Amino acid sequence: MPARIRLPRSPAPSPVLVVGSVAYDSIETPHAKGERILGGSASYASLAASYFAPVQMVGVVGHDFAARDRKKFERREIDLSALQTDETGRTFFWRGRYHENYNRRETLELELNVFERFHPRLPASHQSARFALLGNIRPDLQLHVLDQLTENPFVVADTIDIWIETQRDALMQVLHRASLTVVNDTEATKLTGESNAVAAGRALRASGCRTVIVKKGEHGAVLFHEDGLFALPAYPVTELRDPTGAGDTFAGSLLGYLAARGDTSFAALREGMGYATAVASLTVEAFSCDRLASAGCAEIRRRRRELSKMTRF
Amino acid sequence: MPARIRLPRSPAPSPVLVVGSVAYDSIETPHAKGERILGGSASYASLAASYFAPVQMVGVVGHDFAARDRKKFERREIDLSALQTDETGRTFFWRGRYHENYNRRETLELELNVFERFHPRLPASHQSARFALLGNIRPDLQLHVLDQLTENPFVVADTIDIWIETQRDALMQVLHRASLTVVNDTEATKLTGESNAVAAGRALRASGCRTVIVKKGEHGAVLFHEDGLFALPAYPVTELRDPTGAGDTFAGSLLGYLAARGDTSFAALREGMGYATAVASLTVEAFSCDRLASAGCAEIRRRRRELSKMTRF
Repeated sequence: MPARIRLPRSPAPSPVLVVGSVAYDSIETPHAKGERILGGSASYASLAASYFAPVQMVGVVGHDFAARDRKKFERREIDLSALQTDETGRTFFWRGRYHENYNRRETLELELNVFERFHPRLPASHQSARFALLGNIRPDLQLHVLDQLTENPFVVADTIDIWIETQRDALMQVLHRASLTVVNDTEATKLTGESNAVAAGRALRASGCRTVIVKKGEHGAVLFHEDGLFALPAYPVTELRDPTGAGDTFAGSLLGYLAARGDTSFAALREGMGYATAVASLTVEAFSCDRLASAGCAEIRRRRRELSKMTRF
Repeated sequence: MPARIRLPRSPAPSPVLVVGSVAYDSIETPHAKGERILGGSASYASLAASYFAPVQMVGVVGHDFAARDRKKFERREIDLSALQTDETGRTFFWRGRYHENYNRRETLELELNVFERFHPRLPASHQSARFALLGNIRPDLQLHVLDQLTENPFVVADTIDIWIETQRDALMQVLHRASLTVVNDTEATKLTGESNAVAAGRALRASGCRTVIVKKGEHGAVLFHEDGLFALPAYPVTELRDPTGAGDTFAGSLLGYLAARGDTSFAALREGMGYATAVASLTVEAFSCDRLASAGCAEIRRRRRELSKMTRF
């Protein structure tokens, strides 16, 4: 058994289906570099969710995908039966650079590789998922996954700027069908034209998104729910190394928590955001998924408690 | 008696001394204009503090200062015996413009007027203040006030960019002598070279500031105290009209609260920041001090409760 966080009043957790990219990233920050390190929305989200619930990962890798990286998922008992290997190509690759203050990133190189031919097909065991995360991939692929889910699951959808610009219609279909839209402030502004996060979150709900979380990086996150609004500061990270994957980690932990609790109420979402913020703070302290994969439950619980203490008044 | 917020377990509140500017502002926002409206750091801070404690205002106005504006202070029973009137000149005047998103402001015109000759001299009744707010004025004037205070009071100090650039040494003396430094994120970055608010707040403490609050506008505020860190989101304002005075309102309400409680502990500071955030949200919903002066205790308590609810998990 991988170490999972034990939650009070929780039955055996439902499995979480995570769809997204598995990638190799080459990343430059103002202070360091990482070359061809494990990344991708599904990698971060699956590892994060695995602290709370069993995870079924859906994605594709190429012939160059290293056994030691597969091992990182296996060590946390992530179900890889729907992680396809396409021997005809290489794994999705992204080269990016963060600038001083880490608030802007630049894509230097992007190779879709095996992702160009990827069509997520869910095995029967996965189609009945009751909790699903549509991590950032092309919106038409996200829709294709949604169409295969048979049990009216609780669905979290994430995206990035490029799909807002190039596949807006398909993306809006995804977000309107999802139970919870999780976007960052830049994306929320691009989607709504509203530059203030609160205005943007409200506009997304008005446009037809059921529940919305706007992530603001170092400034925390805000939840917009029919029962009210909830605002949570970020965990004060002292050594920011690489923000890549923080959003995926947040979404994965949150959904893992909801699946573990078997509860998707406003109260459960708020509690889950506390955990998600704690777990995301680990991801940004190291390159790749290393800190995330190795941190352990005690450290997550410690940060969650500390966050609760530093926000209570 | 002006309506004051009744706090549990509070003795008769100590008076709060507020030093700062009283001004006429002409303000342009992307949506509206205000011409020669009442402004200045002491105006906002005094009105805010008056919801919690008696206020002694220290400042100067010119021959053009309108009786109806003086009335706004009197209506909230602010002690104006140390608000000098300099009949030889006009009241301090600032003309500024906010740009889309309100996160940058531009000074179009600045007339010091009577402020050029202002030397704050405290009457004996004011020198014994136990709670003092040094609102934004020239640091050498702030020092001059500090030197007149006899009872080792709890002192909150605020500033703005221009003094960081032009009177850095005097300003650092003020901040190091103050009990609590309250600055916004831009100022914190200018003071420390740290672009992240958490890093900047910690650097300010390391440099010799005892306790620090970094205000982040729509992203809330963070308190750095020897007993720990406390982070509070902003109250989600729907109709941002004019951010002028939000920081002064925050500092004034906070100090008023501490004076009313007779307590400057970490716990009291956290509680006070909840009230300060609630009161500051009123200021930004209208031009000038209008909404602030007229809101009333019930509305402040309501927002404070709502803020507490939307941050609890």
